Amino acid sequence: MTVTFSRDQASGPESYVVGIDFGTLSGRAVVVRVRDGEELGTAVHPYAHAVIEERLPGSGLRLPPDWALQHFEDWREVLREAVPAAVAAAGVDPSAVVGIATDFTACTVLPVLADGTPLAELAQWAGRPHAWPKLWKHHAAQGQADRINALARARGEKWIHRYGGRISAEWQYAKALQVLEEDPAVYAACERWIEAADWIVWQLTGAESRNACTAGYKGIHQDGSYPSEEYLAALHPGFADFARTRLEHPLAPLGSRVGSLTAQAAAWTGLPEGIAVAAGNVDAHVAAPAAQAVDNGRLLAIMGTSTCHVVNGPAPAEVPGICGVVEGGIVAGAWGYEAGQSAVGDIFAWWLRQGVPADYLAEAQARGEDLHQLLTRKIADQPVGGHGLVALDWMNGNRSTLVDHHLSGVIVGLTLATRPEEIYRALLEATAYGTRVIVEALEAGGVPVTEFVVTGGLKKNTLLMQIYADVLRRPVSLALSEQGPALGSAIHAAVAAGAHRDVRAAAAAMGRVERAAYRPDTARADAYDALFAEYRALHDHFGTGPDKQLHRLRRIRNAALTHDSED
Amino acid sequence: MTVTFSRDQASGPESYVVGIDFGTLSGRAVVVRVRDGEELGTAVHPYAHAVIEERLPGSGLRLPPDWALQHFEDWREVLREAVPAAVAAAGVDPSAVVGIATDFTACTVLPVLADGTPLAELAQWAGRPHAWPKLWKHHAAQGQADRINALARARGEKWIHRYGGRISAEWQYAKALQVLEEDPAVYAACERWIEAADWIVWQLTGAESRNACTAGYKGIHQDGSYPSEEYLAALHPGFADFARTRLEHPLAPLGSRVGSLTAQAAAWTGLPEGIAVAAGNVDAHVAAPAAQAVDNGRLLAIMGTSTCHVVNGPAPAEVPGICGVVEGGIVAGAWGYEAGQSAVGDIFAWWLRQGVPADYLAEAQARGEDLHQLLTRKIADQPVGGHGLVALDWMNGNRSTLVDHHLSGVIVGLTLATRPEEIYRALLEATAYGTRVIVEALEAGGVPVTEFVVTGGLKKNTLLMQIYADVLRRPVSLALSEQGPALGSAIHAAVAAGAHRDVRAAAAAMGRVERAAYRPDTARADAYDALFAEYRALHDHFGTGPDKQLHRLRRIRNAALTHDSED
Repeated sequence: MTVTFSRDQASGPESYVVGIDFGTLSGRAVVVRVRDGEELGTAVHPYAHAVIEERLPGSGLRLPPDWALQHFEDWREVLREAVPAAVAAAGVDPSAVVGIATDFTACTVLPVLADGTPLAELAQWAGRPHAWPKLWKHHAAQGQADRINALARARGEKWIHRYGGRISAEWQYAKALQVLEEDPAVYAACERWIEAADWIVWQLTGAESRNACTAGYKGIHQDGSYPSEEYLAALHPGFADFARTRLEHPLAPLGSRVGSLTAQAAAWTGLPEGIAVAAGNVDAHVAAPAAQAVDNGRLLAIMGTSTCHVVNGPAPAEVPGICGVVEGGIVAGAWGYEAGQSAVGDIFAWWLRQGVPADYLAEAQARGEDLHQLLTRKIADQPVGGHGLVALDWMNGNRSTLVDHHLSGVIVGLTLATRPEEIYRALLEATAYGTRVIVEALEAGGVPVTEFVVTGGLKKNTLLMQIYADVLRRPVSLALSEQGPALGSAIHAAVAAGAHRDVRAAAAAMGRVERAAYRPDTARADAYDALFAEYRALHDHFGTGPDKQLHRLRRIRNAALTHDSED
Repeated sequence: MTVTFSRDQASGPESYVVGIDFGTLSGRAVVVRVRDGEELGTAVHPYAHAVIEERLPGSGLRLPPDWALQHFEDWREVLREAVPAAVAAAGVDPSAVVGIATDFTACTVLPVLADGTPLAELAQWAGRPHAWPKLWKHHAAQGQADRINALARARGEKWIHRYGGRISAEWQYAKALQVLEEDPAVYAACERWIEAADWIVWQLTGAESRNACTAGYKGIHQDGSYPSEEYLAALHPGFADFARTRLEHPLAPLGSRVGSLTAQAAAWTGLPEGIAVAAGNVDAHVAAPAAQAVDNGRLLAIMGTSTCHVVNGPAPAEVPGICGVVEGGIVAGAWGYEAGQSAVGDIFAWWLRQGVPADYLAEAQARGEDLHQLLTRKIADQPVGGHGLVALDWMNGNRSTLVDHHLSGVIVGLTLATRPEEIYRALLEATAYGTRVIVEALEAGGVPVTEFVVTGGLKKNTLLMQIYADVLRRPVSLALSEQGPALGSAIHAAVAAGAHRDVRAAAAAMGRVERAAYRPDTARADAYDALFAEYRALHDHFGTGPDKQLHRLRRIRNAALTHDSED
């Protein structure tokens, strides 16, 4: 059954979908009208356990450094709490809801039994840290990731080039190999190793499914298969059958219906039993249709504390330093590219945490401005380059295109006349230059980027948006929804329910974007070309040159602080 | 007559001397006991015209950019106001004052008639900017300095190597050539071109004298002569006889008596007519005996907003990048080396002007600390290298050893965890590394540096002093006087009056220093060696490498701001 609604069709009963966005600290449900994407009600449920970094729930066992876990029950609570609340807020009849879809942080992954039961839910395993879901930012498997990459390069594995030449320690294989090596009993008891994005769908449908997005970006599924048993055996003999026994499953395209809402899930959510449930998805990628950023070349930047970039291209291209390229990874029928910057809004916030002069604080209070507004007002009219500064936006390392978390930030050109708002602006610009490096890498690799679409909290920063338009020499469009991922999930739910032909059609009907809200100014863009050349010179000296000074400084720092703690 | 007092000689009448330090904004007189250097009274007189940068006194004529003039009458006022006030404050009988000496900023220089009358004092010339005294920081003669240096290198002039390979735009020749080229009539009327250091002595004695220090450091007097007429003619035909007609005069050693106080000057100062007047001196160099830093290898650092370094060596050595080496330039009988850092305390103040977090401000207020004390307390105990940062202390350019005022500051190693006090400490350390570059250049050139003696306001910063001891691997001694230059002048006055045998003997009796107040810690010094290697890598990349990025950024900045002002 294919039903298509158009905006001018007022007759017939309205139908609705529910999208749920599982973030790092909370889950958000939104109820959306299928016909036009109108967001009618929303509810947010914070996770009771948030991010588990110190002690294991229950036993109180202390976790090692760099661990980050989550609690599966917190996720179920979102189904029980946020969904009914959103439906109530929307004021719609639950029986008019025709579909549900979810998106999740990734790679957030957990060991489960063949029936989907989390190992951590079993008394036998609840006291073992490796039985618990590992959150995306669990960073304790770097050693495994290093070996995964070295072996892939040594063996000439072709799939490594689909990931910019490097697999992240955050992804499925490094995390699973850590379990095998550090707690083989847990690994043996793990019958399926599954993304939380797919596990939550399992909770809704009662049956396992695997989505094409996480399988591709986080599970190294390329051209129809996972890494070979020979490769996996070379990593660790016990790892040979990992993919075959714990991952292998038909992959569901994004927006496809993978099952129906079970009686139990209907009871949790208050939604009708049997409605369509869509394949799982990732919080970044799912936002593309919400911003109508599905055509090839329309790059969506999800800009907040960090930035994730997703863009579709017509063919697979090997772009050094990107996070990954996956067929159907964003929308079926295209090759989806992902890249990212490890810190963006976090850098601006860091600078404000250094403090501003007392008279600035007083001025901001008197005018009712926040510090971002104050500094923006003081610097927005300075001609491009007037501060004489250029910075490297690596205060949290560099995700793309250098894939190097031991890099750090640099500010160059300081004088005794340099003012706080000038450094602030130089930091805004630095993140724009970092984006331009990614855009240029995509285009050099054969992936055109014609438009820059922004969603996320930073789209409200007008100076930042104009800087991006000027630095990138591209129009900057703005997603209009304040909850892009949840709306994106709702769009996928509508497609799964058959309410729109496919994700592209649903995006056209339900997504909302202000096209070219900012346009590049030729004179400023010319001036930024000169400054970008300076950024590139710094980037190459500190990032790719033979003098690994930032790595040495990191080692000096770590040695100093380690030594100190031993005193 | 040679009279020597020892500390245990209590009998006989006490005698006193007056030292006067002419700074950038005020003059300071101090009355000192000859026997032991006890400072009995002091008085400061601010210059009514301060630094003249905007408009000429009288006519109100607007000055071009980068000009900086002073008013000769302000200097005379110091004689009339500060000296009597200091004597009154000391409570001594003026008739017991046996000598007077002065020191001055340099190169501060003016055109005068053959009798010492400033051209600017004549109605005929008072409306011409070039008739006025040019303060040391008059920076409008860079074009002339560039040609002076290029021609010296092209002709292979040997004296250029005594100045680290480069003559400053601040010095006598560049400023005089600017007068000749921009106002030939003033140049023609100028019968003598004289340092303010010597002009003020002329006011006291009624006769011209020239001191060995400014003639050497600012007047290119080396091995008994000034630059040749051929060289000067090649700069400008009208400049050929500049040195012969407007500079040439027997040079007086520092501490020598160049005359006696005239009746008029006695009336101004309230001191006895006929007492000894010492040769002029420079504010930095004169402070060495006040800190007992006259033996070879005892480097005196005058540390305030910027730092000036002076140290004696046994022989002339050509040290690239130093300001100059002059025989008897600090103390007769040794070769005096001068170097400098364009900004030191100014950099720390700059960082505090960026602001600190509001809770830091509140904490400082609650504890009654200033911000330096607050940040020092928060960071002093961090192990060396624990911040992971290294900075270049070039926020006001680099005087030694790069002699490049178009450089700017750099901070490397920033992370989202970097705190304000960590950057503060990195900036303290950066200035220590900058000093180490100078010390290493001196030693590489054959000038040993065995001790680091500090005078000036920054000696109170205990964290800074310990960092210098550790980074330099040398004991740091502290001058005990709070008014080093004025005490240094008083010491020279005592020698001129015959109260001590020579400056070395007078320094031993009257100077005051706490030897090795800070000693290097081996573990910290080892850790700083690693960080200094990182500073050196940055220094070489940005300062001497082929990629002149900081120069480009400066040009971009200047072009942006110039363009803007034309809009």
